[in-house]
Amino acid sequence: MSDIVERLIDTFGKSCVLTPEEASTRVASHWKQSGGLNCLALLLPETTEDVSKMLQICHEFHQPVVPHGGLTNVVGAADTHPNEIALSLERMNQVEQIDVVNKTVTVQAGVILQQLQDNVATHGQLFSLDLGAKGSCMIGGNIASNAGGLQALRYGVMRNLVLGLEVVLADGTVVSSLNKLMKNNAGYDLKQLFIGSEGTLGIITRAVLKLEERPKTRNTAFIAVDSFEKANDLLLAAKASLKNGLTSFELLWQDYYQLMTSKPSLFSPPLPQTYPFYVLLESLGYDAEKDKTQFEEFLEHCLITELIDDAAMAQAKKELDWFWGIRENVEFIFSIHRPVFLFDISLAISDMDAYIKTIRSELQSVWPDVHLYVFGHMGDGNLHLFVSCGEDDQPTKHRIEELLYKPLQPIGGSITGEHGIGLEKKPWLYLSRTSEEIALMRTIKKALDPRGILNPGKLLPE
Amino acid sequence: MSDIVERLIDTFGKSCVLTPEEASTRVASHWKQSGGLNCLALLLPETTEDVSKMLQICHEFHQPVVPHGGLTNVVGAADTHPNEIALSLERMNQVEQIDVVNKTVTVQAGVILQQLQDNVATHGQLFSLDLGAKGSCMIGGNIASNAGGLQALRYGVMRNLVLGLEVVLADGTVVSSLNKLMKNNAGYDLKQLFIGSEGTLGIITRAVLKLEERPKTRNTAFIAVDSFEKANDLLLAAKASLKNGLTSFELLWQDYYQLMTSKPSLFSPPLPQTYPFYVLLESLGYDAEKDKTQFEEFLEHCLITELIDDAAMAQAKKELDWFWGIRENVEFIFSIHRPVFLFDISLAISDMDAYIKTIRSELQSVWPDVHLYVFGHMGDGNLHLFVSCGEDDQPTKHRIEELLYKPLQPIGGSITGEHGIGLEKKPWLYLSRTSEEIALMRTIKKALDPRGILNPGKLLPE
Repeated sequence: MSDIVERLIDTFGKSCVLTPEEASTRVASHWKQSGGLNCLALLLPETTEDVSKMLQICHEFHQPVVPHGGLTNVVGAADTHPNEIALSLERMNQVEQIDVVNKTVTVQAGVILQQLQDNVATHGQLFSLDLGAKGSCMIGGNIASNAGGLQALRYGVMRNLVLGLEVVLADGTVVSSLNKLMKNNAGYDLKQLFIGSEGTLGIITRAVLKLEERPKTRNTAFIAVDSFEKANDLLLAAKASLKNGLTSFELLWQDYYQLMTSKPSLFSPPLPQTYPFYVLLESLGYDAEKDKTQFEEFLEHCLITELIDDAAMAQAKKELDWFWGIRENVEFIFSIHRPVFLFDISLAISDMDAYIKTIRSELQSVWPDVHLYVFGHMGDGNLHLFVSCGEDDQPTKHRIEELLYKPLQPIGGSITGEHGIGLEKKPWLYLSRTSEEIALMRTIKKALDPRGILNPGKLLPE
Repeated sequence: MSDIVERLIDTFGKSCVLTPEEASTRVASHWKQSGGLNCLALLLPETTEDVSKMLQICHEFHQPVVPHGGLTNVVGAADTHPNEIALSLERMNQVEQIDVVNKTVTVQAGVILQQLQDNVATHGQLFSLDLGAKGSCMIGGNIASNAGGLQALRYGVMRNLVLGLEVVLADGTVVSSLNKLMKNNAGYDLKQLFIGSEGTLGIITRAVLKLEERPKTRNTAFIAVDSFEKANDLLLAAKASLKNGLTSFELLWQDYYQLMTSKPSLFSPPLPQTYPFYVLLESLGYDAEKDKTQFEEFLEHCLITELIDDAAMAQAKKELDWFWGIRENVEFIFSIHRPVFLFDISLAISDMDAYIKTIRSELQSVWPDVHLYVFGHMGDGNLHLFVSCGEDDQPTKHRIEELLYKPLQPIGGSITGEHGIGLEKKPWLYLSRTSEEIALMRTIKKALDPRGILNPGKLLPE
């Protein structure tokens, strides 16, 4: 056993420090089909003080540490080398305080998103971050990766939902910045540094998050439109009519809709499969009668004015699950095609249609039988792309990445809207950020983690 | 003439480098009754390249530089010592690009806020930051101080309106981070560092800002309520009824309302002066008929249910100016009382009423004839306090600060919601931020500005 692991076990006991053998029985990722966790040790702190002392020791030993949350990251940001120590926040899973008057909740970083949603719901509150991985992902990871998800159009991304943070720096210093105020200009807004830093600048142990009054009504429809322009006009019309009731505006390209509503999928199509674009639109509100009337009138008006071609409203829980299943059950793709490469890009709405047409044609010119499935958070300018070309090797993946990412540079798009950089997108960071920006990121990394022990090799290219 | 000023004149010419004598004919602050600008030189760059070269030279000479915008800062963040060089962005005043489709505007830092508002309005767009100093303040300063203002309740503070920044670092490096995307997780979100950093980390030269479709309707009312609780219930009711139409919710304590609507003020009272609290409520929208009906019905319902005691709607431009004048024409206080000390604090809405009662009583116990005027952005948890006790010396000011700021610490309030720290609030920063937070601010300052030339002595306590 290495010196540092002995020291850690001596300090924290065997129940908080798993050996490589013990760690190997645990899953390394809930996303990738990877084997067991491969690391020097897995630390399971129970308090911020534990995290602080653990990092002090790792700092002393120049020991790399990889923070672990729900392990749902898709870009390798939680991957470990055998010589790295993993530190999981899973035991710090308390919802500490709910303030329904001032609409804040204070949580430990290891709280699972869905558990937080459910917990605050019993107090009549909404925590508005919502995403497919909510059953496993943890708040600390949501913050470290600045998660987006299905309701960002209305409530913003994770950065907009965080009021305060407690973070442990590389040397074990606890920076408690648990602000609960909407406006606070007392010095630098330090929390911003850690949000989206993918565990490379500090380990998030606690957070103050914004709550909303829990909506009482939910109106949801699948809508068919005959062009991208009309999808955009529909978005503008929905914003104007439904105001901030409009919560989700998910665009599905035809291929994806067809795949998800054809056998062997268990979902039947709520609308015919013949349209080029489908929108899953949802509005949340507080007045059952008014909201429903307004939503129906809006759809009717859109039909009469031929802005949309067809629409189906979800009337009951069963239909909600059906409609949202079509959008969210992306794992189904993996049962049809293998391998499938997943991408997450961001670009101006005005560039979307042309961009997808271009890359579809370029992919087809290389792999005539390629499958390209596109859907995403149109209202946020954020799309997810699934590509399957029958090949699975690294050069193929690299070629697809090149095809998809390079056209983003001249139009000011980003190689990631939500997923972050991790290990996988490091080679392409230069397409979305200038060399001066990357140099400044390094300056900050060096200042906060001079020994480079926090999630080394992630986010910043060599 | 000093070596550096000679070098600067040689490089940029006399038209871009004003001598101390030339600078002294210019005002040092539009807020304080100060004399002329007192500095080693005043630089007037015309391009980002100018700013870069100027900072390169200052860096070489270890020369302190104070960035200047519209000089409306109220906490001394733009004050200069005679040995410091001021660098004004006033000549970089171009609105460079308005993108009405993707709702962004790219501006130089020296654009005056009102000019930006007016410019984008001609394209049917709204830039939503709005504050009393809009006729003088510049966008660069609004960003550097993370301005809030009158519409933050709906649109957020400046931090929420900035998509991208171009910044010149202390050594002259230009970091161009002119992102236009709503979601971009490609590495650290560097712009966050500079927003609210009061010119201590870099000089902002250019920004990409969010636009909104320009509202077409404006419904405004002065409302009287008989308790703070009812003001809060009114806020919740307005959010529920008017949704994100609700744009401003300004609370005025009785003393302030009485002062502003009594002679020699030119404003008469729109409502009797007998109520303890007044709310100036405004809703912006897009549908003339619907919005007016909804607004009137909302007020009527509030009257019938006795949530509010009285209300007056502004029907024409003249009344809008009248109503908003009562709230905004704060300079009037200075014509009645002298000296007046101005404060800007942030606290939970649930703490506001008790806090104001406590400090009023404490102020009165020291100065029985003290005047305390309170009003502010209740919906944001942000209040402005004007205190006049007849004395004008530094110990008096310090004692008032102590009385006002110290009770904020146990309730997690902030010594500044909007104005920032500058010089004036440095002694009190420890009340709102921990020593670890302040140490981390220093680490960042040191990493980005190792020679300490950018706005030295501001924001960070010695």
